[in-house]
Amino acid sequence: MQTVQYRPIGEISSPFKGPSGVPRQAIGAREVRATIEVFDEFQAGLRDLEGFSHIVVLFHLHRVTNPSLVAHPPWDGKAHGVFATRSPHRPNPIGLSIVALERIEGNRLHIRGVDMIDGSPVLDIKPYIPELNPAEPVRVGWLADGKAQGMIESRSGDRRTDTRTEDS
Amino acid sequence: MQTVQYRPIGEISSPFKGPSGVPRQAIGAREVRATIEVFDEFQAGLRDLEGFSHIVVLFHLHRVTNPSLVAHPPWDGKAHGVFATRSPHRPNPIGLSIVALERIEGNRLHIRGVDMIDGSPVLDIKPYIPELNPAEPVRVGWLADGKAQGMIESRSGDRRTDTRTEDS
Repeated sequence: MQTVQYRPIGEISSPFKGPSGVPRQAIGAREVRATIEVFDEFQAGLRDLEGFSHIVVLFHLHRVTNPSLVAHPPWDGKAHGVFATRSPHRPNPIGLSIVALERIEGNRLHIRGVDMIDGSPVLDIKPYIPELNPAEPVRVGWLADGKAQGMIESRSGDRRTDTRTEDS
Repeated sequence: MQTVQYRPIGEISSPFKGPSGVPRQAIGAREVRATIEVFDEFQAGLRDLEGFSHIVVLFHLHRVTNPSLVAHPPWDGKAHGVFATRSPHRPNPIGLSIVALERIEGNRLHIRGVDMIDGSPVLDIKPYIPELNPAEPVRVGWLADGKAQGMIESRSGDRRTDTRTEDS
């Protein structure tokens, strides 16, 4: 099957300069602030975005070099298929974070609750709309019994053992 | 900035054979069923996914030919920046749907609540984890006052005027 190709629409400036120490989930870093610079040619697409308190950011996990079909979250100690985890080491390393949008200045989005590494290329920005979440009861498999909370509170380790998960 | 390139991990088989008549949001099509065939080489990544009742599917909106920075949702009648909408006509046409996972048979995922077009290439599958949604109050800008519900209930029109939005 053919590959698909995307051109980044912007770039993240974040206090995390490398994979180590990054929160495993944006929601585990509620007070961490960062900015997204949307490239000038895409700025017109931001109109009316400021009315939304939260945005969904799709970004390229550009520091991932070792994709694997099996993830071993260190805070869990068991092996899981990568598609059943939020590990960044995925066949297509696309990060998905829901972050708070504090304000927009021109082409610069000030965001809060960030688990992205500095320099991450941004692929898309969507408004976060809670009405699109499932209305029915949800089961979370191996993350039940409080493990989702363990994931949220953990941070990535060193690069070799890093199975940091990215956000929702 | 350099482009990023992804290789599809699977493909969607859906009753929607073209862009017309597709629900604008997966949640507006709760009873529509479809399957995702995960290509054999990625099947090991599905381990433990079946415990999750819902999954996040990132897919390539392969029928989008006319990206625009401005979207005019027909059920709203006003112009909005594309990043403040769920229009599929985005600079990088990446669809994001939260769907119910009914069961997995080998490399085939049976899903429900589908707004994807038949043949859409799948880029990534992540477990849906409600704990990763914002815990704080959410504002939805121009979609306030029941407009999010209008979006969910609408369906796409013909191809020329199609500004169908994709899911959450």
